[in-house]
Amino acid sequence: MSRSDVESKAGLRHGPAPGWKRLRLTIAYCGTPWKGWQSQDGGGGVQDEINATIKKATGIVTQVQGSGRTDAGVHALAQVAHGDVPDTVRMNGDAWVNALNACLPLTIRVLQVEDASTQFHARFDAAGKVYRYRIWRPRMLSPFEADRAWHVYGPLDMDALRWCCERLVGTHNFIRLSANRGDMPETERRMLPDKTTRTIHRAEVREEGDVLEFEFEGDGFLYKMVRLIVGSLIHVARKREPKEWFASLLNDPTGRQSNQTAPACGLYLVRVKYPAT
Amino acid sequence: MSRSDVESKAGLRHGPAPGWKRLRLTIAYCGTPWKGWQSQDGGGGVQDEINATIKKATGIVTQVQGSGRTDAGVHALAQVAHGDVPDTVRMNGDAWVNALNACLPLTIRVLQVEDASTQFHARFDAAGKVYRYRIWRPRMLSPFEADRAWHVYGPLDMDALRWCCERLVGTHNFIRLSANRGDMPETERRMLPDKTTRTIHRAEVREEGDVLEFEFEGDGFLYKMVRLIVGSLIHVARKREPKEWFASLLNDPTGRQSNQTAPACGLYLVRVKYPAT
Repeated sequence: MSRSDVESKAGLRHGPAPGWKRLRLTIAYCGTPWKGWQSQDGGGGVQDEINATIKKATGIVTQVQGSGRTDAGVHALAQVAHGDVPDTVRMNGDAWVNALNACLPLTIRVLQVEDASTQFHARFDAAGKVYRYRIWRPRMLSPFEADRAWHVYGPLDMDALRWCCERLVGTHNFIRLSANRGDMPETERRMLPDKTTRTIHRAEVREEGDVLEFEFEGDGFLYKMVRLIVGSLIHVARKREPKEWFASLLNDPTGRQSNQTAPACGLYLVRVKYPAT
Repeated sequence: MSRSDVESKAGLRHGPAPGWKRLRLTIAYCGTPWKGWQSQDGGGGVQDEINATIKKATGIVTQVQGSGRTDAGVHALAQVAHGDVPDTVRMNGDAWVNALNACLPLTIRVLQVEDASTQFHARFDAAGKVYRYRIWRPRMLSPFEADRAWHVYGPLDMDALRWCCERLVGTHNFIRLSANRGDMPETERRMLPDKTTRTIHRAEVREEGDVLEFEFEGDGFLYKMVRLIVGSLIHVARKREPKEWFASLLNDPTGRQSNQTAPACGLYLVRVKYPAT
């Protein structure tokens, strides 16, 4: 039984209400002023801004749902969300884009709005994600990079970084490279390896001028997983731990979790992949 | 009599107090969170932050003076300021840089601190400045460019822009391309052409990917002058006025001032030039 079937059975996957249709939105945001993607009590989530803007621009009350959360300060080049609107709304994609961007804060831009199948679910259908992590390497942090990269000055063992990136590719239990969101006791999480196992298809490191950049593509990423991967990679590259420590984080789920978390400001959600898109 | 001599006679140029020495600071800042360079009642000027940080880091109470003001939201890649500290302070330039940057907000970075001559004055000695202006050209403003460029979408007459930039080079009365800071009645300002005459040494326009960039080098720039130049240039490039209108702004000081002011967020103070530096 596929993941999609499980979710349908569990009643988690709902189509639009009768007389409503489903839209798919692609959204970019600079995370600096926002409390992450997720709606917050009192507002401040990007999701809150999207919902409020749809209401302001069209009068329609809807709750968009994203492909997944991003932490406060994390950026997105192309987050994907779905939302339902009445069938009677006859705006095309460009009209939606223009209407929403006219009302949204300039740090959030809707890139695309498309009609989606009634069964489309931004989270459950996501088959993969691409994340990028930017590191500013010069001695002095540029004042223009303050909230857009992690400042790491000093020598880094690039060979060790590349070695670790090669080890990342494949299917691993990421229990030691993820954080507990608090929805279950840690002892229980430890006993359910399926919940913490993910496949990384691509893990690259590249140097471009003043910036060191990682890019990871995988079928899914756990809470704080990319930040823990990058924090742990840099820990090794600074020779604070041997590269074998990083390998053990991937291969021995019984050990202690890594406590090396890279800051949110360097992280970018680049793309969400869906089957046949 | 040189400008410097005039200022000394007028008592505007003071050396350091006895037992104090003069430092020259080079400072970069992202203007977005700041109310401009100049100290503000209640704080929020970059100057306020520098003064407060010198006090916090060293206990020294001093007032740094910049090469000139920048408006709220305007950025600087290398603003220059001077400030006095007791002779007994024996920190070298790097120690100053590290001490100040450790306390400053990340959107302000001190790039360099040097011993200066006791007669050095960041404003009176400035012999020239370089400003850059960034314009974001794609249909959609990037959420990462919101406070860092002016969004101008649609066709621009590049030939007209280049023609106007050529006309800019030389000595002109910029009365129609500057604003009254409010320190004298406009009728009086109109009768003192020396006060509003400046020489532009270089005026360039270039297209680099999604960005259209202007760069201006001159012996000095009046209040809002670069923003009025760029606003007026784009007005012509959008064919709202003929290029002869722009030429008349430079050549006929009797006409109406331009009211086309480009937003602060696209403006960058790139460099301040001093004799023999």
